Amino acid sequence: VDQRGRGAIEAAKRGAVGALVRSMTSAHDDFPHTGTMRYDDKVTKVPGAALSTIAADRLSQQLKQDPKLEFELEMGCQTLPDVKSYNVVGEIKGSTRPEEIITIGGHLDSWDLAQGAHDDGTGCVQSIEVLRLLKASGLRPERTIRAVLFMNEENGARGGQKYAELAKAAGEKHLAAIESDGGGFTPRGFGFEADAATIAKVQAWRPLLAPYLAGQLGPGHGGTDIEPLKDQVKALIGYDCDSQRYFDIHHTAADTFDKVNRRELELGGAAMATLVYLLSKYGL
Amino acid sequence: VDQRGRGAIEAAKRGAVGALVRSMTSAHDDFPHTGTMRYDDKVTKVPGAALSTIAADRLSQQLKQDPKLEFELEMGCQTLPDVKSYNVVGEIKGSTRPEEIITIGGHLDSWDLAQGAHDDGTGCVQSIEVLRLLKASGLRPERTIRAVLFMNEENGARGGQKYAELAKAAGEKHLAAIESDGGGFTPRGFGFEADAATIAKVQAWRPLLAPYLAGQLGPGHGGTDIEPLKDQVKALIGYDCDSQRYFDIHHTAADTFDKVNRRELELGGAAMATLVYLLSKYGL
Repeated sequence: VDQRGRGAIEAAKRGAVGALVRSMTSAHDDFPHTGTMRYDDKVTKVPGAALSTIAADRLSQQLKQDPKLEFELEMGCQTLPDVKSYNVVGEIKGSTRPEEIITIGGHLDSWDLAQGAHDDGTGCVQSIEVLRLLKASGLRPERTIRAVLFMNEENGARGGQKYAELAKAAGEKHLAAIESDGGGFTPRGFGFEADAATIAKVQAWRPLLAPYLAGQLGPGHGGTDIEPLKDQVKALIGYDCDSQRYFDIHHTAADTFDKVNRRELELGGAAMATLVYLLSKYGL
Repeated sequence: VDQRGRGAIEAAKRGAVGALVRSMTSAHDDFPHTGTMRYDDKVTKVPGAALSTIAADRLSQQLKQDPKLEFELEMGCQTLPDVKSYNVVGEIKGSTRPEEIITIGGHLDSWDLAQGAHDDGTGCVQSIEVLRLLKASGLRPERTIRAVLFMNEENGARGGQKYAELAKAAGEKHLAAIESDGGGFTPRGFGFEADAATIAKVQAWRPLLAPYLAGQLGPGHGGTDIEPLKDQVKALIGYDCDSQRYFDIHHTAADTFDKVNRRELELGGAAMATLVYLLSKYGL
Protein backbone atom coordinates (compact mmCIF):
# COMPACT_ATOMS: atom_id res chain seq x y z
CA VAL A 1 0.00 0.00 0.00
CA ASP A 2 2.94 2.37 0.58
CA GLN A 3 3.82 1.91 -3.12
CA ARG A 4 0.31 2.96 -4.14
CA GLY A 5 0.26 5.85 -1.68
CA ARG A 6 3.77 7.26 -2.22
CA GLY A 7 4.71 5.60 -5.53
CA ALA A 8 4.29 8.73 -7.68
CA ILE A 9 6.39 10.79 -5.24
CA GLU A 10 9.25 8.30 -5.01
CA ALA A 11 9.21 7.62 -8.76
CA ALA A 12 9.29 11.35 -9.62
CA LYS A 13 12.26 11.89 -7.25
CA ARG A 14 14.14 9.39 -9.41
CA GLY A 15 13.17 11.12 -12.66
CA ALA A 16 10.15 9.00 -13.65
CA VAL A 17 7.43 10.46 -15.87
CA GLY A 18 4.74 8.29 -14.28
CA ALA A 19 4.20 5.50 -11.76
CA LEU A 20 2.28 2.25 -12.13
CA VAL A 21 1.40 0.04 -9.21
CA ARG A 22 0.31 -3.59 -9.18
CA SER A 23 -3.16 -3.78 -7.60
CA MET A 24 -3.28 -4.38 -3.82
CA THR A 25 -5.09 -7.70 -3.95
CA SER A 26 -4.39 -11.40 -3.86
CA ALA A 27 -6.99 -11.91 -6.61
CA HIS A 28 -5.77 -12.60 -10.12
CA ASP A 29 -8.20 -10.56 -12.20
CA ASP A 30 -8.62 -7.76 -14.72
CA PHE A 31 -9.92 -5.14 -12.27
CA PRO A 32 -7.56 -2.33 -11.28
CA HIS A 33 -7.72 -1.98 -7.48
CA THR A 34 -7.45 1.70 -6.71
CA GLY A 35 -7.14 3.80 -3.57
CA THR A 36 -5.55 6.86 -1.99
CA MET A 37 -2.33 8.26 -3.49
CA ARG A 38 -0.47 11.34 -2.35
CA TYR A 39 1.70 14.07 -3.83
CA ASP A 40 4.45 16.09 -2.22
CA ASP A 41 4.47 19.78 -3.13
CA LYS A 42 8.27 19.73 -3.27
CA VAL A 43 8.34 16.95 -5.93
CA THR A 44 7.09 17.02 -9.53
CA LYS A 45 3.58 15.57 -9.75
CA VAL A 46 3.64 12.65 -12.19
CA PRO A 47 0.62 10.51 -13.04
CA GLY A 48 0.07 7.39 -10.92
CA ALA A 49 -2.17 4.48 -11.87
CA ALA A 50 -3.07 0.98 -10.71
CA LEU A 51 -2.79 -1.99 -13.07
CA SER A 52 -4.89 -5.09 -12.60
CA THR A 53 -2.87 -8.10 -11.44
CA ILE A 54 -3.30 -9.77 -14.84
CA ALA A 55 -2.14 -6.61 -16.64
CA ALA A 56 0.79 -6.19 -14.23
CA ASP A 57 1.90 -9.78 -14.84
CA ARG A 58 1.68 -9.21 -18.59
CA LEU A 59 3.65 -5.96 -18.40
CA SER A 60 6.29 -7.57 -16.19
CA GLN A 61 6.63 -10.43 -18.69
CA GLN A 62 6.94 -8.02 -21.63
CA LEU A 63 9.54 -5.91 -19.83
CA LYS A 64 11.63 -9.01 -19.26
CA GLN A 65 11.48 -9.81 -22.98
CA ASP A 66 12.14 -6.20 -24.02
CA PRO A 67 13.70 -3.92 -21.39
CA LYS A 68 13.32 -0.97 -23.80
CA LEU A 69 9.56 -1.48 -24.09
CA GLU A 70 7.65 1.76 -24.61
CA PHE A 71 4.00 2.27 -23.91
CA GLU A 72 1.51 5.09 -23.58
CA LEU A 73 -0.57 5.89 -20.54
CA GLU A 74 -3.91 7.55 -21.19
CA MET A 75 -5.88 8.61 -18.13
CA GLY A 76 -9.13 10.51 -17.84
CA CYS A 77 -9.28 11.22 -14.12
CA GLN A 78 -9.52 14.75 -12.77
CA THR A 79 -10.10 16.50 -9.47
CA LEU A 80 -13.30 18.52 -9.52
CA PRO A 81 -14.15 21.41 -7.19
CA ASP A 82 -15.67 20.51 -3.82
CA VAL A 83 -19.45 20.46 -3.56
CA LYS A 84 -21.59 20.60 -0.47
CA SER A 85 -22.82 17.23 0.74
CA TYR A 86 -24.41 15.73 3.84
CA ASN A 87 -24.30 12.99 6.44
CA VAL A 88 -27.63 11.16 6.81
CA VAL A 89 -28.74 10.70 10.41
CA GLY A 90 -31.61 8.79 12.03
CA GLU A 91 -32.13 7.95 15.66
CA ILE A 92 -34.23 6.23 18.29
CA LYS A 93 -34.48 8.34 21.43
CA GLY A 94 -33.46 6.54 24.60
CA SER A 95 -36.22 5.79 27.11
CA THR A 96 -34.42 6.61 30.38
CA ARG A 97 -31.11 8.21 29.34
CA PRO A 98 -31.91 9.96 26.06
CA GLU A 99 -29.01 12.38 26.54
CA GLU A 100 -26.44 9.58 26.20
CA ILE A 101 -25.78 8.73 22.56
CA ILE A 102 -24.49 5.56 20.90
CA THR A 103 -23.55 6.16 17.26
CA ILE A 104 -23.54 3.36 14.72
CA GLY A 105 -22.39 4.07 11.20
CA GLY A 106 -21.00 3.30 7.78
CA HIS A 107 -20.16 5.60 4.89
CA LEU A 108 -22.25 6.67 1.91
CA ASP A 109 -19.50 7.45 -0.55
CA SER A 110 -17.45 4.87 -2.43
CA TRP A 111 -14.24 4.83 -4.45
CA ASP A 112 -14.59 6.36 -7.93
CA LEU A 113 -14.91 3.31 -10.13
CA ALA A 114 -16.72 1.13 -7.59
CA GLN A 115 -20.41 0.84 -6.78
CA GLY A 116 -19.22 0.33 -3.22
CA ALA A 117 -21.49 -2.56 -2.26
CA HIS A 118 -19.14 -3.82 0.48
CA ASP A 119 -17.30 -0.49 0.87
CA ASP A 120 -19.47 0.65 2.33
CA GLY A 121 -23.06 -0.03 1.26
CA THR A 122 -23.23 -2.94 3.69
CA GLY A 123 -22.11 -0.74 6.58
CA CYS A 124 -24.90 1.74 5.79
CA VAL A 125 -27.50 -1.01 5.49
CA GLN A 126 -26.37 -2.62 8.75
CA SER A 127 -26.53 0.71 10.59
CA ILE A 128 -30.12 1.21 9.48
CA GLU A 129 -30.79 -2.47 10.26
CA VAL A 130 -29.74 -1.92 13.88
CA LEU A 131 -32.53 0.65 14.26
CA ARG A 132 -34.99 -1.61 12.43
CA LEU A 133 -34.17 -4.64 14.60
CA LEU A 134 -34.49 -2.64 17.81
CA LYS A 135 -37.90 -1.36 16.70
CA ALA A 136 -39.00 -4.82 15.50
CA SER A 137 -37.93 -6.40 18.81
CA GLY A 138 -40.14 -4.05 20.76
CA LEU A 139 -37.22 -3.36 23.14
CA ARG A 140 -36.91 0.39 23.48
CA PRO A 141 -33.26 1.18 24.23
CA GLU A 142 -32.48 3.14 27.39
CA ARG A 143 -29.90 5.34 25.66
CA THR A 144 -30.28 7.12 22.32
CA ILE A 145 -29.18 5.09 19.30
CA ARG A 146 -28.14 7.11 16.29
CA ALA A 147 -27.46 5.60 12.86
CA VAL A 148 -25.19 7.81 10.77
CA LEU A 149 -24.41 7.36 7.07
CA PHE A 150 -21.20 9.38 6.83
CA MET A 151 -20.28 11.29 3.68
CA ASN A 152 -16.73 11.51 2.26
CA GLU A 153 -14.89 8.74 4.07
CA GLU A 154 -12.76 7.85 1.07
CA ASN A 155 -11.48 11.32 0.33
CA GLY A 156 -10.72 13.02 3.63
CA ALA A 157 -13.31 11.77 6.15
CA ARG A 158 -14.92 15.19 6.31
CA GLY A 159 -18.33 13.76 7.19
CA GLY A 160 -16.88 12.12 10.28
CA GLN A 161 -14.98 15.25 11.22
CA LYS A 162 -18.07 17.42 10.88
CA TYR A 163 -20.18 14.99 12.93
CA ALA A 164 -17.67 15.06 15.81
CA GLU A 165 -17.36 18.85 15.55
CA LEU A 166 -21.12 19.38 15.72
CA ALA A 167 -21.44 16.88 18.59
CA LYS A 168 -18.87 18.79 20.61
CA ALA A 169 -20.37 22.20 19.74
CA ALA A 170 -23.81 20.98 20.84
CA GLY A 171 -22.41 19.61 24.11
CA GLU A 172 -23.71 16.14 23.31
CA LYS A 173 -22.74 13.25 25.59
CA HIS A 174 -21.48 10.31 23.54
CA LEU A 175 -20.98 6.88 25.12
CA ALA A 176 -19.58 4.86 22.22
CA ALA A 177 -19.44 4.70 18.43
CA ILE A 178 -19.46 1.60 16.25
CA GLU A 179 -18.46 1.47 12.59
CA SER A 180 -18.97 -1.26 9.98
CA ASP A 181 -16.48 -0.58 7.20
CA GLY A 182 -14.75 -3.89 6.53
CA GLY A 183 -17.37 -5.42 4.26
CA GLY A 184 -20.66 -7.16 4.99
CA PHE A 185 -19.18 -10.61 5.57
CA THR A 186 -19.84 -13.21 8.29
CA PRO A 187 -19.16 -11.74 11.74
CA ARG A 188 -16.20 -12.73 13.87
CA GLY A 189 -16.43 -10.07 16.59
CA PHE A 190 -15.66 -6.44 17.42
CA GLY A 191 -12.41 -4.54 17.94
CA PHE A 192 -12.25 -1.88 20.65
CA GLU A 193 -10.28 1.34 21.02
CA ALA A 194 -10.84 1.71 24.76
CA ASP A 195 -9.05 1.29 28.08
CA ALA A 196 -8.43 -2.17 29.51
CA ALA A 197 -11.24 -1.97 32.08
CA THR A 198 -13.79 -1.09 29.39
CA ILE A 199 -12.62 -3.94 27.17
CA ALA A 200 -12.79 -6.36 30.10
CA LYS A 201 -16.37 -5.26 30.81
CA VAL A 202 -17.40 -5.84 27.22
CA GLN A 203 -15.66 -9.22 27.08
CA ALA A 204 -18.10 -10.44 29.76
CA TRP A 205 -20.80 -10.16 27.04
CA ARG A 206 -19.04 -12.73 24.90
CA PRO A 207 -21.66 -15.49 25.52
CA LEU A 208 -24.37 -13.09 24.30
CA LEU A 209 -22.53 -12.24 21.08
CA ALA A 210 -21.13 -15.69 20.25
CA PRO A 211 -24.53 -16.97 18.94
CA TYR A 212 -24.20 -14.35 16.20
CA LEU A 213 -20.65 -15.64 15.51
CA ALA A 214 -19.36 -12.33 16.89
CA GLY A 215 -17.71 -13.56 20.08
CA GLN A 216 -14.18 -12.26 19.40
CA LEU A 217 -13.93 -9.09 21.51
CA GLY A 218 -10.61 -7.37 22.10
CA PRO A 219 -8.41 -4.40 21.26
CA GLY A 220 -8.75 -3.28 17.66
CA HIS A 221 -9.54 -0.45 15.28
CA GLY A 222 -12.78 1.57 15.39
CA GLY A 223 -13.16 3.16 11.97
CA THR A 224 -12.18 6.21 9.91
CA ASP A 225 -15.56 7.94 10.22
CA ILE A 226 -15.84 7.60 13.99
CA GLU A 227 -12.15 8.29 14.75
CA PRO A 228 -12.76 12.07 15.19
CA LEU A 229 -15.15 11.23 18.09
CA LYS A 230 -12.30 9.59 20.00
CA ASP A 231 -11.99 12.14 22.80
CA GLN A 232 -15.77 12.25 23.32
CA VAL A 233 -16.48 8.50 23.84
CA LYS A 234 -15.45 5.66 26.15
CA ALA A 235 -14.99 3.32 23.19
CA LEU A 236 -14.59 3.37 19.43
CA ILE A 237 -15.71 0.00 18.13
CA GLY A 238 -15.08 -1.63 14.75
CA TYR A 239 -17.21 -4.47 13.37
CA ASP A 240 -14.86 -7.37 12.55
CA CYS A 241 -15.94 -9.85 9.91
CA ASP A 242 -14.46 -12.44 7.61
CA SER A 243 -11.93 -10.45 5.59
CA GLN A 244 -10.73 -13.09 3.13
CA ARG A 245 -12.79 -11.85 0.17
CA TYR A 246 -12.64 -8.12 0.90
CA PHE A 247 -9.51 -7.29 -1.07
CA ASP A 248 -10.76 -9.26 -4.07
CA ILE A 249 -13.24 -6.43 -4.65
CA HIS A 250 -12.14 -3.48 -2.49
CA HIS A 251 -11.97 -0.21 -4.52
CA THR A 252 -12.70 -1.96 -7.81
CA ALA A 253 -15.48 -2.16 -10.35
CA ALA A 254 -16.17 -5.63 -8.91
CA ASP A 255 -17.52 -4.28 -5.61
CA THR A 256 -21.12 -4.85 -6.67
CA PHE A 257 -24.36 -5.88 -4.96
CA ASP A 258 -24.22 -9.50 -6.22
CA LYS A 259 -21.13 -10.01 -4.02
CA VAL A 260 -23.21 -9.44 -0.87
CA ASN A 261 -24.62 -12.56 0.77
CA ARG A 262 -27.88 -11.95 2.56
CA ARG A 263 -27.25 -14.34 5.46
CA GLU A 264 -23.82 -12.85 6.12
CA LEU A 265 -25.15 -9.31 5.97
CA GLU A 266 -28.05 -10.08 8.29
CA LEU A 267 -25.89 -11.91 10.83
CA GLY A 268 -23.64 -8.85 11.02
CA GLY A 269 -26.62 -6.54 11.53
CA ALA A 270 -27.93 -8.81 14.28
CA ALA A 271 -24.54 -8.89 16.00
CA MET A 272 -24.34 -5.09 15.87
CA ALA A 273 -27.89 -4.67 17.19
CA THR A 274 -27.09 -7.01 20.09
CA LEU A 275 -23.97 -5.08 21.03
CA VAL A 276 -25.84 -1.77 20.73
CA TYR A 277 -28.62 -3.06 22.97
CA LEU A 278 -26.12 -4.21 25.61
CA LEU A 279 -24.29 -0.87 25.49
CA SER A 280 -27.60 0.91 25.80
CA LYS A 281 -28.71 -1.18 28.76
CA TYR A 282 -25.49 -1.49 30.76
CA GLY A 283 -23.36 1.46 29.63
CA LEU A 284 -19.57 1.29 29.73
CA VAL B 1 -34.84 -31.84 5.32
CA ASP B 2 -37.31 -34.39 6.73
CA GLN B 3 -39.74 -33.28 4.00
CA ARG B 4 -37.14 -33.94 1.32
CA GLY B 5 -36.11 -37.25 2.89
CA ARG B 6 -39.54 -38.69 3.76
CA GLY B 7 -41.81 -36.50 1.64
CA ALA B 8 -42.58 -39.14 -1.00
CA ILE B 9 -43.42 -41.73 1.67
CA GLU B 10 -45.73 -39.46 3.64
CA ALA B 11 -47.39 -38.09 0.49
CA ALA B 12 -48.02 -41.59 -0.91
CA LYS B 13 -49.60 -42.68 2.39
CA ARG B 14 -52.13 -39.92 1.84
CA GLY B 15 -52.84 -40.97 -1.74
CA ALA B 16 -50.53 -38.57 -3.59
CA VAL B 17 -49.20 -39.47 -7.04
CA GLY B 18 -45.99 -37.50 -6.47
CA ALA B 19 -44.22 -35.21 -4.01
CA LEU B 20 -42.56 -31.86 -4.60
CA VAL B 21 -40.33 -30.20 -2.05
CA ARG B 22 -39.18 -26.59 -1.84
CA SER B 23 -35.37 -26.54 -2.01
CA MET B 24 -33.51 -26.67 1.32
CA THR B 25 -31.80 -23.30 1.02
CA SER B 26 -32.19 -19.72 2.10
CA ALA B 27 -31.13 -18.58 -1.38
CA HIS B 28 -33.80 -17.30 -3.75
CA ASP B 29 -32.69 -18.79 -7.03
CA ASP B 30 -33.59 -21.04 -9.94
CA PHE B 31 -31.43 -24.01 -8.91
CA PRO B 32 -33.21 -27.05 -7.49
CA HIS B 33 -31.34 -28.11 -4.34
CA THR B 34 -31.41 -31.88 -4.24
CA GLY B 35 -30.33 -34.56 -1.77
CA THR B 36 -31.14 -37.93 -0.26
CA MET B 37 -34.75 -39.16 -0.33
CA ARG B 38 -36.00 -42.47 0.93
CA TYR B 39 -38.76 -44.98 0.13
CA ASP B 40 -40.56 -47.38 2.42
CA ASP B 41 -41.17 -50.84 0.93
CA LYS B 42 -44.61 -50.94 2.55
CA VAL B 43 -45.74 -47.74 0.81
CA THR B 44 -46.29 -47.07 -2.91
CA LYS B 45 -43.21 -45.44 -4.42
CA VAL B 46 -44.25 -42.12 -5.97
CA PRO B 47 -41.88 -39.71 -7.69
CA GLY B 48 -40.28 -37.02 -5.54
CA ALA B 49 -38.58 -33.88 -6.83
CA ALA B 50 -37.09 -30.62 -5.57
CA LEU B 51 -38.29 -27.29 -6.95
CA SER B 52 -36.07 -24.22 -6.90
CA THR B 53 -37.19 -21.61 -4.40
CA ILE B 54 -38.29 -19.29 -7.23
CA ALA B 55 -40.29 -22.10 -8.87
CA ALA B 56 -41.80 -23.11 -5.51
CA ASP B 57 -42.90 -19.53 -4.84
CA ARG B 58 -44.44 -19.36 -8.32
CA LEU B 59 -46.27 -22.68 -7.88
CA SER B 60 -47.52 -21.63 -4.45
CA GLN B 61 -48.85 -18.37 -5.92
CA GLN B 62 -50.58 -20.18 -8.81
CA LEU B 63 -52.16 -22.73 -6.45
CA LYS B 64 -53.61 -19.89 -4.42
CA GLN B 65 -55.16 -18.41 -7.58
CA ASP B 66 -56.38 -21.77 -8.87
CA PRO B 67 -56.67 -24.57 -6.29
CA LYS B 68 -57.56 -26.99 -9.11
CA LEU B 69 -54.33 -26.26 -10.98
CA GLU B 70 -53.03 -29.27 -12.91
CA PHE B 71 -49.49 -29.71 -14.07
CA GLU B 72 -47.26 -32.44 -15.46
CA LEU B 73 -44.06 -33.70 -13.91
CA GLU B 74 -41.46 -35.04 -16.32
CA MET B 75 -38.36 -36.57 -14.74
CA GLY B 76 -35.41 -38.32 -16.35
CA CYS B 77 -33.62 -39.74 -13.34
CA GLN B 78 -32.93 -43.44 -12.93
CA THR B 79 -30.99 -45.76 -10.65
CA LEU B 80 -28.25 -47.57 -12.55
CA PRO B 81 -26.55 -50.80 -11.46
CA ASP B 82 -23.62 -50.50 -9.07
CA VAL B 83 -20.15 -50.31 -10.58
CA LYS B 84 -16.81 -50.93 -8.91
CA SER B 85 -15.02 -47.80 -7.78
CA TYR B 86 -12.13 -46.84 -5.53
CA ASN B 87 -10.91 -44.64 -2.70
CA VAL B 88 -7.69 -42.79 -3.57
CA VAL B 89 -5.03 -42.96 -0.86
CA GLY B 90 -1.65 -41.26 -0.42
CA GLU B 91 0.50 -41.10 2.67
CA ILE B 92 3.66 -39.80 4.32
CA LYS B 93 5.23 -42.47 6.52
CA GLY B 94 5.86 -41.35 10.09
CA SER B 95 9.49 -40.96 11.16
CA THR B 96 9.36 -42.46 14.66
CA ARG B 97 5.87 -44.00 14.97
CA PRO B 98 5.00 -45.04 11.42
CA GLU B 99 2.54 -47.66 12.70
CA GLU B 100 0.22 -44.96 14.12
CA ILE B 101 -2.00 -43.47 11.42
CA ILE B 102 -3.76 -40.12 11.16
CA THR B 103 -6.29 -40.05 8.33
CA ILE B 104 -7.34 -36.84 6.66
CA GLY B 105 -10.02 -36.92 4.00
CA GLY B 106 -12.78 -35.58 1.81
CA HIS B 107 -14.96 -37.32 -0.75
CA LEU B 108 -14.50 -37.70 -4.49
CA ASP B 109 -18.13 -38.13 -5.52
CA SER B 110 -20.69 -35.33 -5.71
CA TRP B 111 -24.46 -35.06 -5.98
CA ASP B 112 -25.84 -35.90 -9.47
CA LEU B 113 -26.42 -32.47 -10.93
CA ALA B 114 -23.55 -30.74 -9.14
CA GLN B 115 -19.89 -30.42 -10.08
CA GLY B 116 -19.29 -30.64 -6.35
CA ALA B 117 -16.69 -27.88 -6.01
CA HIS B 118 -17.46 -27.30 -2.32
CA ASP B 119 -19.07 -30.73 -1.78
CA ASP B 120 -16.53 -32.01 -1.73
CA GLY B 121 -13.79 -30.97 -4.15
CA THR B 122 -12.41 -28.57 -1.58
CA GLY B 123 -12.18 -31.34 1.04
CA CYS B 124 -10.18 -33.48 -1.41
CA VAL B 125 -7.86 -30.60 -2.33
CA GLN B 126 -7.31 -29.70 1.33
CA SER B 127 -6.49 -33.31 2.21
CA ILE B 128 -3.82 -33.42 -0.50
CA GLU B 129 -2.71 -29.92 0.58
CA VAL B 130 -1.99 -31.21 4.10
CA LEU B 131 0.55 -33.66 2.67
CA ARG B 132 1.99 -30.98 0.37
CA LEU B 133 2.39 -28.47 3.21
CA LEU B 134 4.05 -31.03 5.47
CA LYS B 135 6.51 -31.90 2.71
CA ALA B 136 7.10 -28.24 1.82
CA SER B 137 7.74 -27.35 5.48
CA GLY B 138 10.50 -29.93 5.71
CA LEU B 139 8.98 -31.18 8.98
CA ARG B 140 8.68 -34.94 8.70
CA PRO B 141 5.75 -36.02 10.88
CA GLU B 142 6.42 -38.59 13.61
CA ARG B 143 3.25 -40.55 12.88
CA THR B 144 1.96 -41.64 9.45
CA ILE B 145 -0.31 -39.13 7.71
CA ARG B 146 -2.70 -40.58 5.20
CA ALA B 147 -4.83 -38.48 2.82
CA VAL B 148 -7.90 -40.36 1.63
CA LEU B 149 -10.26 -39.26 -1.13
CA PHE B 150 -13.31 -41.34 -0.26
CA MET B 151 -15.67 -42.66 -2.93
CA ASN B 152 -19.48 -42.78 -2.58
CA GLU B 153 -20.16 -40.49 0.36
CA GLU B 154 -23.38 -39.15 -1.10
CA ASN B 155 -25.02 -42.46 -1.80
CA GLY B 156 -24.25 -44.81 1.08
CA ALA B 157 -20.75 -43.95 2.31
CA ARG B 158 -19.39 -47.24 1.06
CA GLY B 159 -15.89 -45.83 0.53
CA GLY B 160 -15.68 -44.88 4.19
CA GLN B 161 -17.09 -48.23 5.28
CA LYS B 162 -14.59 -50.15 3.15
CA TYR B 163 -11.69 -48.05 4.43
CA ALA B 164 -12.60 -48.78 8.06
CA GLU B 165 -13.16 -52.46 7.27
CA LEU B 166 -9.75 -52.83 5.58
CA ALA B 167 -8.06 -50.91 8.41
CA LYS B 168 -9.48 -53.30 10.97
CA ALA B 169 -8.71 -56.39 8.88
CA ALA B 170 -5.08 -55.26 8.48
CA GLY B 171 -4.76 -54.61 12.24
CA GLU B 172 -3.83 -50.97 11.61
CA LYS B 173 -3.51 -48.63 14.58
CA HIS B 174 -5.45 -45.41 13.94
CA LEU B 175 -5.01 -42.38 16.19
CA ALA B 176 -7.49 -39.92 14.69
CA ALA B 177 -9.35 -39.05 11.50
CA ILE B 178 -10.19 -35.59 10.18
CA GLU B 179 -12.75 -34.81 7.49
CA SER B 180 -13.36 -31.63 5.52
CA ASP B 181 -16.90 -31.88 4.12
CA GLY B 182 -18.59 -28.59 4.96
CA GLY B 183 -17.23 -26.53 2.08
CA GLY B 184 -13.90 -24.82 1.55
CA PHE B 185 -14.78 -21.60 3.37
CA THR B 186 -12.82 -19.52 5.93
CA PRO B 187 -11.92 -21.66 8.97
CA ARG B 188 -13.52 -21.25 12.35
CA GLY B 189 -12.20 -24.38 14.10
CA PHE B 190 -12.66 -28.10 14.48
CA GLY B 191 -15.39 -30.24 16.05
CA PHE B 192 -14.41 -33.37 17.98
CA GLU B 193 -16.13 -36.69 18.59
CA ALA B 194 -13.94 -37.73 21.50
CA ASP B 195 -13.97 -38.05 25.29
CA ALA B 196 -13.71 -34.94 27.47
CA ALA B 197 -10.05 -35.50 28.37
CA THR B 198 -9.07 -35.73 24.70
CA ILE B 199 -10.98 -32.57 23.84
CA ALA B 200 -9.37 -30.73 26.78
CA LYS B 201 -5.93 -31.79 25.55
CA VAL B 202 -6.62 -30.48 22.05
CA GLN B 203 -8.08 -27.21 23.40
CA ALA B 204 -4.63 -26.42 24.82
CA TRP B 205 -3.50 -26.06 21.18
CA ARG B 206 -5.91 -23.20 20.61
CA PRO B 207 -3.18 -20.50 20.46
CA LEU B 208 -1.45 -22.49 17.72
CA LEU B 209 -4.61 -22.80 15.59
CA ALA B 210 -6.05 -19.32 16.19
CA PRO B 211 -3.60 -17.66 13.74
CA TYR B 212 -5.27 -19.73 11.00
CA LEU B 213 -8.68 -18.49 12.30
CA ALA B 214 -9.34 -22.07 13.45
CA GLY B 215 -9.29 -21.56 17.20
CA GLN B 216 -12.79 -22.85 17.99
CA LEU B 217 -12.19 -26.36 19.32
CA GLY B 218 -14.94 -28.33 21.03
CA PRO B 219 -17.42 -31.19 20.74
CA GLY B 220 -18.81 -31.60 17.24
CA HIS B 221 -19.34 -33.89 14.29
CA GLY B 222 -16.52 -35.72 12.52
CA GLY B 223 -17.82 -36.63 9.07
CA THR B 224 -19.77 -39.25 7.15
CA ASP B 225 -16.71 -40.84 5.54
CA ILE B 226 -14.72 -41.21 8.76
CA GLU B 227 -17.68 -42.22 10.95
CA PRO B 228 -17.09 -45.97 10.34
CA LEU B 229 -13.61 -45.58 11.92
CA LYS B 230 -15.19 -44.48 15.20
CA ASP B 231 -14.28 -47.54 17.30
CA GLN B 232 -10.70 -47.54 15.98
CA VAL B 233 -9.66 -43.94 16.83
CA LYS B 234 -9.38 -41.65 19.84
CA ALA B 235 -11.04 -38.81 17.93
CA LEU B 236 -13.13 -38.17 14.84
CA ILE B 237 -12.58 -34.56 13.84
CA GLY B 238 -14.62 -32.35 11.51
CA TYR B 239 -13.23 -29.21 9.89
CA ASP B 240 -15.56 -26.32 10.80
CA CYS B 241 -15.69 -23.33 8.49
CA ASP B 242 -17.95 -20.41 7.67
CA SER B 243 -21.22 -22.10 6.69
CA GLN B 244 -23.29 -19.10 5.60
CA ARG B 245 -22.88 -19.64 1.85
CA TYR B 246 -22.85 -23.45 1.84
CA PHE B 247 -26.57 -24.04 1.42
CA ASP B 248 -26.74 -21.49 -1.39
CA ILE B 249 -24.94 -24.03 -3.57
CA HIS B 250 -25.06 -27.39 -1.76
CA HIS B 251 -26.29 -30.21 -4.05
CA THR B 252 -27.07 -27.84 -6.92
CA ALA B 253 -25.75 -27.02 -10.37
CA ALA B 254 -24.32 -23.86 -8.77
CA ASP B 255 -21.68 -25.77 -6.77
CA THR B 256 -18.94 -24.83 -9.23
CA PHE B 257 -15.24 -23.98 -9.05
CA ASP B 258 -15.78 -20.22 -9.37
CA LYS B 259 -17.48 -20.28 -5.95
CA VAL B 260 -14.21 -21.33 -4.29
CA ASN B 261 -12.07 -18.52 -2.92
CA ARG B 262 -8.37 -19.31 -2.96
CA ARG B 263 -7.49 -17.54 0.31
CA GLU B 264 -10.32 -19.28 2.16
CA LEU B 265 -9.37 -22.67 0.73
CA GLU B 266 -5.68 -22.23 1.57
CA LEU B 267 -6.36 -21.01 5.12
CA GLY B 268 -8.40 -24.16 5.72
CA GLY B 269 -5.64 -26.38 4.36
CA ALA B 270 -3.10 -24.61 6.58
CA ALA B 271 -5.33 -25.03 9.65
CA MET B 272 -5.73 -28.74 8.90
CA ALA B 273 -2.00 -29.22 8.33
CA THR B 274 -1.26 -27.51 11.66
CA LEU B 275 -3.69 -29.74 13.55
CA VAL B 276 -2.32 -32.84 11.80
CA TYR B 277 1.24 -31.87 12.71
CA LEU B 278 0.29 -31.36 16.36
CA LEU B 279 -1.54 -34.69 16.47
CA SER B 280 1.45 -36.34 14.88
CA LYS B 281 3.91 -34.80 17.34
CA TYR B 282 1.99 -35.04 20.60
CA GLY B 283 -0.56 -37.81 20.06
CA LEU B 284 -3.87 -37.87 21.91
